[in-house]
Amino acid sequence: MHPIPQTQSARLAQQIQFVIEIDKLKRVLRQTLLTDQSRRENSAEHSWHIALMAVLLAEYAPEPVDVLHVIKMLLVHDLVEIDAGDTFCYDVQHNASKSDREQQAAERIFGMLPPDQAKELRTLWDEFEAQETPAAMFAASLDRLQPMLNNHQTQGGTWQMHGITRDLVLKRAAPIQTGAPELWVFIQQMIDECVAAGFLHPEPCDRSMPNSSP
Amino acid sequence: MHPIPQTQSARLAQQIQFVIEIDKLKRVLRQTLLTDQSRRENSAEHSWHIALMAVLLAEYAPEPVDVLHVIKMLLVHDLVEIDAGDTFCYDVQHNASKSDREQQAAERIFGMLPPDQAKELRTLWDEFEAQETPAAMFAASLDRLQPMLNNHQTQGGTWQMHGITRDLVLKRAAPIQTGAPELWVFIQQMIDECVAAGFLHPEPCDRSMPNSSP
Repeated sequence: MHPIPQTQSARLAQQIQFVIEIDKLKRVLRQTLLTDQSRRENSAEHSWHIALMAVLLAEYAPEPVDVLHVIKMLLVHDLVEIDAGDTFCYDVQHNASKSDREQQAAERIFGMLPPDQAKELRTLWDEFEAQETPAAMFAASLDRLQPMLNNHQTQGGTWQMHGITRDLVLKRAAPIQTGAPELWVFIQQMIDECVAAGFLHPEPCDRSMPNSSP
Repeated sequence: MHPIPQTQSARLAQQIQFVIEIDKLKRVLRQTLLTDQSRRENSAEHSWHIALMAVLLAEYAPEPVDVLHVIKMLLVHDLVEIDAGDTFCYDVQHNASKSDREQQAAERIFGMLPPDQAKELRTLWDEFEAQETPAAMFAASLDRLQPMLNNHQTQGGTWQMHGITRDLVLKRAAPIQTGAPELWVFIQQMIDECVAAGFLHPEPCDRSMPNSSP
């Protein structure tokens, strides 16, 4: 990193260093393809997409949620991937080590901020990971919905590439049942259509689903 | 676009169509380079970056601002580029036609949403463009600051490529004086350091600055 310009304020210097650091999230590639299939999506643009979805789809949260709080969670939820990388949700082996890698990443990355903001962002990330509050469950539902839409638009995209089957996608989508219950019928319909169109393999599969965080 | 799955709700169908449509913003390239110079930044990841900056830097707004409102403006501020493209801020010719192109884009893109949400997003975009409220001016300051940080990190990046001079960068940054006045000293310092380091040409330039929106 090129040294940032000098500033009289240590607080501002920490904030600016952090702002520069998080540019790296634009280089973390997810498995999901863009809707035109031109390339894989990165975690920064994915975070933008679901943050705006939170604005538009807030009415489907299971109870009224603080939209700012949801958006903040979504804006920070993938930052640990700067160090830990994106872990494909259907990759059992890498999901086993995911938690340790992400905890270390959270320490370093959020720790760059002034203590009050480090604590705020860490608390947001912990809440998202714990999946215990309605806001976190709604946020996770958007995080699950968006790649499903892109897979549907790309004739099965990631599912096709990795031979993912209907049962795995349904398990992956399951948090939407509680996090955005009114969307669940739509989700099931979409999965059925993907199977019918040949975008998604119908056979069950005996691979164990990683008990992963979203 | 692959037809979206059927839903009983016309409202949800419109919302989902919009969510799929805006994936296209990930393909709109800006002039700014990523901090590692590996590629140009796109408008979706840029929007994520400055939305998170709004969370972290809200204390530098000229008066207390509604952070959710600022973030919403930043999440939608570039959507018109899906049709109108990104207009390089120093490109006089293309900035002349920018407003017409973007107005048409706003009609089409926001018009995909249910009427209440179409109106909400259009109003947010209009407020950002008008630059009359403290929230819009603070939002625009972040939109100006982020590419400057990336240009600083990339030894002048876009400025070098296009022969941009100090006076143009100062004019481009000027809204920060009112939109985030406490950051103005830092901005001037950064520009001075860029000139001293050879990242930015010092000579004044007689090109007229486009009276562009941010």
